[in-house]
Amino acid sequence: MINTICLNSNSRTFDENCLAADISELRLEEGNVIWADVSDPTSHDFEELAEEFGFHHLSIEDCQNTHQRPKVEEYTGYYFIVLYEAELVGPNDRLELRELNIFLGKNYLVTVHSRPIRAIETAKRLWHEWTDRSDQGAGLLAYLLIDAIVDDYLPLLDIMSERMDELEDSIFGEWRAEVIEEIFSIKKKLLYLRRAITPLRDVFNMLLRREQPIFPRETHVYFQDVFDHLIRVADTIDTLRDILGSTMDAYLSVWGNRMYKVTKRLTSISTIFMSVTLIAGIYGMNFALMPELRWRYGYVYALTSMVVVGLALYAYLKKVKWI
Amino acid sequence: MINTICLNSNSRTFDENCLAADISELRLEEGNVIWADVSDPTSHDFEELAEEFGFHHLSIEDCQNTHQRPKVEEYTGYYFIVLYEAELVGPNDRLELRELNIFLGKNYLVTVHSRPIRAIETAKRLWHEWTDRSDQGAGLLAYLLIDAIVDDYLPLLDIMSERMDELEDSIFGEWRAEVIEEIFSIKKKLLYLRRAITPLRDVFNMLLRREQPIFPRETHVYFQDVFDHLIRVADTIDTLRDILGSTMDAYLSVWGNRMYKVTKRLTSISTIFMSVTLIAGIYGMNFALMPELRWRYGYVYALTSMVVVGLALYAYLKKVKWI
Amino acid sequence: MINTICLNSNSRTFDENCLAADISELRLEEGNVIWADVSDPTSHDFEELAEEFGFHHLSIEDCQNTHQRPKVEEYTGYYFIVLYEAELVGPNDRLELRELNIFLGKNYLVTVHSRPIRAIETAKRLWHEWTDRSDQGAGLLAYLLIDAIVDDYLPLLDIMSERMDELEDSIFGEWRAEVIEEIFSIKKKLLYLRRAITPLRDVFNMLLRREQPIFPRETHVYFQDVFDHLIRVADTIDTLRDILGSTMDAYLSVWGNRMYKVTKRLTSISTIFMSVTLIAGIYGMNFALMPELRWRYGYVYALTSMVVVGLALYAYLKKVKWI
Amino acid sequence: MINTICLNSNSRTFDENCLAADISELRLEEGNVIWADVSDPTSHDFEELAEEFGFHHLSIEDCQNTHQRPKVEEYTGYYFIVLYEAELVGPNDRLELRELNIFLGKNYLVTVHSRPIRAIETAKRLWHEWTDRSDQGAGLLAYLLIDAIVDDYLPLLDIMSERMDELEDSIFGEWRAEVIEEIFSIKKKLLYLRRAITPLRDVFNMLLRREQPIFPRETHVYFQDVFDHLIRVADTIDTLRDILGSTMDAYLSVWGNRMYKVTKRLTSISTIFMSVTLIAGIYGMNFALMPELRWRYGYVYALTSMVVVGLALYAYLKKVKWI
Amino acid sequence: MINTICLNSNSRTFDENCLAADISELRLEEGNVIWADVSDPTSHDFEELAEEFGFHHLSIEDCQNTHQRPKVEEYTGYYFIVLYEAELVGPNDRLELRELNIFLGKNYLVTVHSRPIRAIETAKRLWHEWTDRSDQGAGLLAYLLIDAIVDDYLPLLDIMSERMDELEDSIFGEWRAEVIEEIFSIKKKLLYLRRAITPLRDVFNMLLRREQPIFPRETHVYFQDVFDHLIRVADTIDTLRDILGSTMDAYLSVWGNRMYKVTKRLTSISTIFMSVTLIAGIYGMNFALMPELRWRYGYVYALTSMVVVGLALYAYLKKVKWI
Repeated sequence: MINTICLNSNSRTFDENCLAADISELRLEEGNVIWADVSDPTSHDFEELAEEFGFHHLSIEDCQNTHQRPKVEEYTGYYFIVLYEAELVGPNDRLELRELNIFLGKNYLVTVHSRPIRAIETAKRLWHEWTDRSDQGAGLLAYLLIDAIVDDYLPLLDIMSERMDELEDSIFGEWRAEVIEEIFSIKKKLLYLRRAITPLRDVFNMLLRREQPIFPRETHVYFQDVFDHLIRVADTIDTLRDILGSTMDAYLSVWGNRMYKVTKRLTSISTIFMSVTLIAGIYGMNFALMPELRWRYGYVYALTSMVVVGLALYAYLKKVKWI
Repeated sequence: MINTICLNSNSRTFDENCLAADISELRLEEGNVIWADVSDPTSHDFEELAEEFGFHHLSIEDCQNTHQRPKVEEYTGYYFIVLYEAELVGPNDRLELRELNIFLGKNYLVTVHSRPIRAIETAKRLWHEWTDRSDQGAGLLAYLLIDAIVDDYLPLLDIMSERMDELEDSIFGEWRAEVIEEIFSIKKKLLYLRRAITPLRDVFNMLLRREQPIFPRETHVYFQDVFDHLIRVADTIDTLRDILGSTMDAYLSVWGNRMYKVTKRLTSISTIFMSVTLIAGIYGMNFALMPELRWRYGYVYALTSMVVVGLALYAYLKKVKWI
Repeated sequence: MINTICLNSNSRTFDENCLAADISELRLEEGNVIWADVSDPTSHDFEELAEEFGFHHLSIEDCQNTHQRPKVEEYTGYYFIVLYEAELVGPNDRLELRELNIFLGKNYLVTVHSRPIRAIETAKRLWHEWTDRSDQGAGLLAYLLIDAIVDDYLPLLDIMSERMDELEDSIFGEWRAEVIEEIFSIKKKLLYLRRAITPLRDVFNMLLRREQPIFPRETHVYFQDVFDHLIRVADTIDTLRDILGSTMDAYLSVWGNRMYKVTKRLTSISTIFMSVTLIAGIYGMNFALMPELRWRYGYVYALTSMVVVGLALYAYLKKVKWI
Repeated sequence: MINTICLNSNSRTFDENCLAADISELRLEEGNVIWADVSDPTSHDFEELAEEFGFHHLSIEDCQNTHQRPKVEEYTGYYFIVLYEAELVGPNDRLELRELNIFLGKNYLVTVHSRPIRAIETAKRLWHEWTDRSDQGAGLLAYLLIDAIVDDYLPLLDIMSERMDELEDSIFGEWRAEVIEEIFSIKKKLLYLRRAITPLRDVFNMLLRREQPIFPRETHVYFQDVFDHLIRVADTIDTLRDILGSTMDAYLSVWGNRMYKVTKRLTSISTIFMSVTLIAGIYGMNFALMPELRWRYGYVYALTSMVVVGLALYAYLKKVKWI
Repeated sequence: MINTICLNSNSRTFDENCLAADISELRLEEGNVIWADVSDPTSHDFEELAEEFGFHHLSIEDCQNTHQRPKVEEYTGYYFIVLYEAELVGPNDRLELRELNIFLGKNYLVTVHSRPIRAIETAKRLWHEWTDRSDQGAGLLAYLLIDAIVDDYLPLLDIMSERMDELEDSIFGEWRAEVIEEIFSIKKKLLYLRRAITPLRDVFNMLLRREQPIFPRETHVYFQDVFDHLIRVADTIDTLRDILGSTMDAYLSVWGNRMYKVTKRLTSISTIFMSVTLIAGIYGMNFALMPELRWRYGYVYALTSMVVVGLALYAYLKKVKWI
């Protein structure tokens, strides 16, 4: 389904209910910027787009295949951009990455997506508020959209960061086996987020360093800003990965410590029981002549010696911190 | 054996049964594109090729030696390309890498391989379908062939990715020792796939950034597309490697956890048995005066105290989660 | 709150109590350098700054959002710099990173921060002392400020380095479990310090390598000096991280060693007790005909053999260093 | 000892028994290419070389010092090349790296080595066979020599690769402790091979990318070929290192598995014996009133209950795969 | 204290006892090269130097602060170089890094250090011997000095390499716990050496690749030589670090092996003793009817069965290599 919005930067009018069929006419009018938002695209929609805007068949094919890698490709007269909106959904904070394809031309923006993209609403709202800068056209619109998506990564990373702090506390505090499963799950999410961001960062870096024929100098500073946010997101992901790595190391070391303790305890308990049992074993021998067996307080003496030996060993092992 | 296909971009004719002997003539005709597919090449075939197309003896030698690394080399008038088609074969999903050598000239394409290459059939089929773009000649043909090979890596990586998800589940679920062997086997496959892809990616990157004398601008966008797919495959391999690495880490941590549990259990069982056995040991002593031995319910008392001590310890160890 | 300091490089006067309202006038005067220090900025302050100096709204927005990444951005006519002052505070040496935003123009410096920055006092003091170089204007002032912040990282790293030496000694000496927690805590601090420094280093590297339109050649050498200090701080952080990494490795190896020792000891103690208990067990058997049981010194003989076997095993295990 | 070979590319003559003393004369003749092979060089030989060819004293000094790193250095009028021939020698496959110094001028090649170099014979042989390309002079000669050395790394790496496959099998199959020693030994060899190859690869990369004043364009393609082989060797070494790394990981994981098994077995055996011994302990008590002791089949009952308990535990532990 | 040496490259005279006060005059004389060696510099010395040679106050400040990072900085008319001489001192082979600051101008060399530098003597000696190349002035002098320092790293690394070979042998041979402490100590030394060398390598790389205004082309080849040695030292350090890393891995694996062995032995010993003790336990039961107890050779039979069971188990466990 194609929704068309048309904005005129001269008259500063804003029409949200244009007909897709009128795009050709609207594009001819001076100062018009067209935003065609295509959700759940059909192959018919693609044909229409290709015909109307003259998109290269390779970019249309990329658009039809899902699971593209995030990228910015330059075609004659337009940029083809793929990026992903990220959200944690459901009770288990499952990571959802929603693909958004953007065709960005001099005076139009075509967005294609099969799932609803929150950033589109944000961009529309800001577009209304920023009408004083509306002379910057499709470039500014693309900035608002991409920036809304990129900025949405940060609160998501904050949630992960907080979860990691809790995990870290639980490692040094009460020991829970499930910690590993959670660390592993966060690690994977970071991996996918990183994969969704770093290619964009690298491409924007390249784009900003060379001559930009399509957009004017004033728009350039906005793309610089997106690039800055991309770096920030990528940096944060890398920092979280580093912290996660050392959380993992800490987990293993703490495990080592506990293993060491439990083995010392096993040794200690064995030592105490074995020595006490030995005494019982000695007085269980059947020698005809064992003076202690005839003593009046022989049994008491044996029990006492058991307790004394047991307690002495316990005290010693307690002192050297083996128990 | 040399199979020759000739296509004329002006008349849009397509002749699959040309004779190898006619190549010289066919090449002279305006608008003709020749594809010579050499399977199981003999040294005679190589001589013929070298003579007909004037290939440098170093590229012919590379072609004769198998196990070349994937590469793109520029010789005067043609490119020499080595790449590998990947497939999982047999019941154990053994990875098979089949070498394909390509000589790509202005109006000809020579493919040399000793094992059948599936992508050749795919490329032929698309070549029939895409006749409307046939004016782009040998460049487009090379694109179809290379892209078919590169795209075939993705379903293969999907299979591995699914297998890895299962392995991951089995790590946190029921413990199986063979998991390690499988992780290791996938790791090696990824290593070989990576080795087959990354050199190509680097070379295409270099090729695309400089002046391209052989092919026209319009073909350039197709090679850009191959490059994009190469990056995507390489990125996916790297992501899978990262996930595999953390699966390995998870395996080790889970192992640590189980080791810790089993050692705690050993300690617990030893403690219970040793304490109960100690009671039996005490009443096995032969002291003349042991009042309990004369008690009417001495035996019952002893057994009861054993059960009580055993259960009490068990309850305690259960509570602190040692058993 | 805006504090304004005005310095005239011709008359070498220094006025610390200018009114913020006079900035426009002061800026017009030849040779004047204005330093507007904004602490706890209100949105009104931001408006005033934007109006007075003509700052781009994107840089003002960055300034309003805290937790920016350290960076240097070039806008028309000024640089926008974000950096962090680091301090260890409180009894637990908690790492505090205080954000400082700098707008650096040809003849003005605007510093914005929500927490007090120590380096501002240092820069003011040096500015008084270095009046003989006052002709270098706002560039020198920025140098003094940034250098004061960067140099403050070094004593902080020295404290960490000393703490790490102690930790290392404690690993090879008396074993303490908390070592891991401390290593982990230092590791995280280094991670945050690194994140606060390396982006600056990279940006300065880029800035110094290209044409610098705003500042004269003589000021360049000062920024080279800041860059040199940035590298030094970053290098020191990396070295500390490397040392910490091998401290961690050493910890694990030493743990392995101790685990090995305690398991050997467990085996040794079990062996000794089991063999001695076996003797007691043998003479506890109830055979009608056991000659030793009738011997006069049978009991003494049994006890002696126990002691002999126990000591012999102990001596042997001591010799092979198992106990 | 200096051996001199002289080749004339015009007359295609080949003289292997020139006198070292005649080099000066031979060099003057048009079309002559001189190869002076110096084995076990004396300081007199070095003086002669320096005088005859005008070598810089720094390159002569490098040549006299052994254990140089592999490199290509450009001096006025000649290249100074250091590289290493690799061979596995002796029963333990000890890695031997034999240094070869090459001075490569427009129409001469000087090779200096203290141990016999196999590649020199190979190069001589090919030089005879390739006389049809003899117009390419000293450059081609250098190509033949360097390529022979570089290509010799590949069979050597194949041997290592096969050995590694065996090691891998033995890790998952029958467990041998010496595996670690072998892995470690191969790891070191790969380290030394890598050190002998990668600097050359980097230097050739640099050389090929810039203007080459000494050799003509046609020779360039040969050096491109050497570079390609260098990359291939370096890539193979890196792949082997990666595989070795994961073999090491597999070793550790398998070790963990076996450790886990043996600890479970220890726990199982202890549990069975302790429970059975407990029964014996109970009937070893000396209570006056223990009904079972008077039973006719008391003893059989006791033994039976021991066997039953023992077998039941064994069956259970077998079922849960602890034994 | 300032020691001044003056050399005249025309007259090839060499005066070691010049007065610091005469430097100004000596510098004016054509062909003179001045070497001012400042040991234990006072602030007065620094003032004198700054005045005489016109050093920038930032380079003087760097010189006064110790613990600079190694670097080469270009100031107007001179280079400021910081590097470190390395030596192993004392019985524990403690690593000592001695800082040397060099100001290198067109016809002068100023060296500043607070501890005696051995390389200064070496450079003086070679300077006497190399008078035939004295026309290359201060550049050659700097070469001799820096090269003497860099070359001194190699024997030091050889000592470490030998020590590492011994450690490696001891890992696979007789097991010593202190190995870890030594590995860790060498690791730290390599870290510090690397930190002292790699920045220099990077700076020299940069210096050699661009136009060098101060020194003539002939001196360039000497700095190329220093660069080559820097790479060699850095490469050797990296190789040693790699070997150390795999020594560490080997240590851990061998530890694992020994741990496995000792646990198997513990299990074996427990099994043997428990089974033998069980027999004793059985015949210690007090059943009224136990036929064996009445047998004439019951006791012998019991002892024999103990020995048989014990030996059989021992033989079996020996066979499966558990003991």
